[in-house]
Amino acid sequence: MGITLEHAQAAIQAAHQKALEMGVKMNIAVVDAGANLVAFARMDGAWLGSLDISIKKAKTARFFDMPTGAIGGLSQPGGSLFGIEHSNGGLISFPGGIPIKDGHGQVVGAIGVSGSSVENDHAVAEAGQQAIEGK
Amino acid sequence: MGITLEHAQAAIQAAHQKALEMGVKMNIAVVDAGANLVAFARMDGAWLGSLDISIKKAKTARFFDMPTGAIGGLSQPGGSLFGIEHSNGGLISFPGGIPIKDGHGQVVGAIGVSGSSVENDHAVAEAGQQAIEGK
Amino acid sequence: MGITLEHAQAAIQAAHQKALEMGVKMNIAVVDAGANLVAFARMDGAWLGSLDISIKKAKTARFFDMPTGAIGGLSQPGGSLFGIEHSNGGLISFPGGIPIKDGHGQVVGAIGVSGSSVENDHAVAEAGQQAIEGK
Amino acid sequence: MGITLEHAQAAIQAAHQKALEMGVKMNIAVVDAGANLVAFARMDGAWLGSLDISIKKAKTARFFDMPTGAIGGLSQPGGSLFGIEHSNGGLISFPGGIPIKDGHGQVVGAIGVSGSSVENDHAVAEAGQQAIEGK
Repeated sequence: MGITLEHAQAAIQAAHQKALEMGVKMNIAVVDAGANLVAFARMDGAWLGSLDISIKKAKTARFFDMPTGAIGGLSQPGGSLFGIEHSNGGLISFPGGIPIKDGHGQVVGAIGVSGSSVENDHAVAEAGQQAIEGK
Repeated sequence: MGITLEHAQAAIQAAHQKALEMGVKMNIAVVDAGANLVAFARMDGAWLGSLDISIKKAKTARFFDMPTGAIGGLSQPGGSLFGIEHSNGGLISFPGGIPIKDGHGQVVGAIGVSGSSVENDHAVAEAGQQAIEGK
Repeated sequence: MGITLEHAQAAIQAAHQKALEMGVKMNIAVVDAGANLVAFARMDGAWLGSLDISIKKAKTARFFDMPTGAIGGLSQPGGSLFGIEHSNGGLISFPGGIPIKDGHGQVVGAIGVSGSSVENDHAVAEAGQQAIEGK
Repeated sequence: MGITLEHAQAAIQAAHQKALEMGVKMNIAVVDAGANLVAFARMDGAWLGSLDISIKKAKTARFFDMPTGAIGGLSQPGGSLFGIEHSNGGLISFPGGIPIKDGHGQVVGAIGVSGSSVENDHAVAEAGQQAIEGK
């Protein structure tokens, strides 16, 4: 299913390191091509409510093979995907979830981060994504 | 886990008393640091639908260590957290949930109140919060 | 709906007192005639998993107007109600839930207790029930 | 909330190492004192269905502060806790979940392992538990 545990743990370690540098406390989740959890870490003192959000961001990014924020742009009132968050047991459609691709551009999983502003969440997720894609 | 039953019951009693003075009928819930229910009371004649809302408000306030209304300010259409209510089995993001801190500023739990206007809900929650924090 | 908050809190106080005397740590829940929670208390150090069980015991006792253990006697493999626990979002069919009646023998609610052996749970629930029925 | 991410990751690493030695593929979950997930890892090729089971085992062990298998001994047909699995959104009551204590004997979390026989699951969970308790 694409992402190995080794890759997922490398992504979490890189995201964790990035969060420490930024001084933020994150929940970090990595799912595989089947949108099932591979690895997860909650930093000490990170928001409890972000546990579920980080996992839902990772799943959402893999469900539609796009960053979660892109879905949120379409799910606003009047938008073409308004209400999509009600599907799949609950989606999260604001930034912080990013698909992860292999060397052939194939989506093999996704990372989801939650615990700070959506800009910070996205930046930390990107650090995790690049730890895998840069390999 | 932070809040004792004695503290939680003192918070509920103070909130109950405040509600009586204001002439409103409330559901009042207190959760601990793990966001698990410690004590609950539903005043006679209070809205049945507010039972679940009061518990979700208390959980939401602890999940993100901020008053529930602060989340609602960010989760409106176009806001950065639009749709966050779909996480954690359902959040409530309008006022009436407040975190409770110990003497060191550490969040040890939260109180959630529902049964009237959100302004009244918040005022009654505040009375409960202060019964613990003022100790 | 039968049980007042005053009665429910008296039942919880009596059950709490009984638990202290027995040296056990309990979750105690009281529901009204509509099987909706009226009051709840979790003693310090009581099992977290008993939170949900105490509420489900109270609901189960009111759902069928009998002690929860009586249902368990019928829901064993081969019994007439085998599998009934799958209904109503999850029932608990072992002892610790007891219906509460008014002076006319009408069921007005129920109490559910969880945190020790089922014998202890039942004894503590009975102390709560009697605090209301004895009034 | 008891267990730090550092401890949880050390437990997962030790359990992972033990699983490699035994030639089994496991899902490994660690929860804190509030029964909320702190860290998780799914080994490559481990059963997908064991993902949820490992998390539920960790939660169950913390919910009742005992190894999950001890609950299963009481929840058989005719046993005093028959059907307890229907509570708390689903419990797992066979071996593989173990509470984790601090130096004072206080339960600070739990580990849950799933992916092989229950004997193997328990052995791998024990390796994780000891990585924290032995510190």
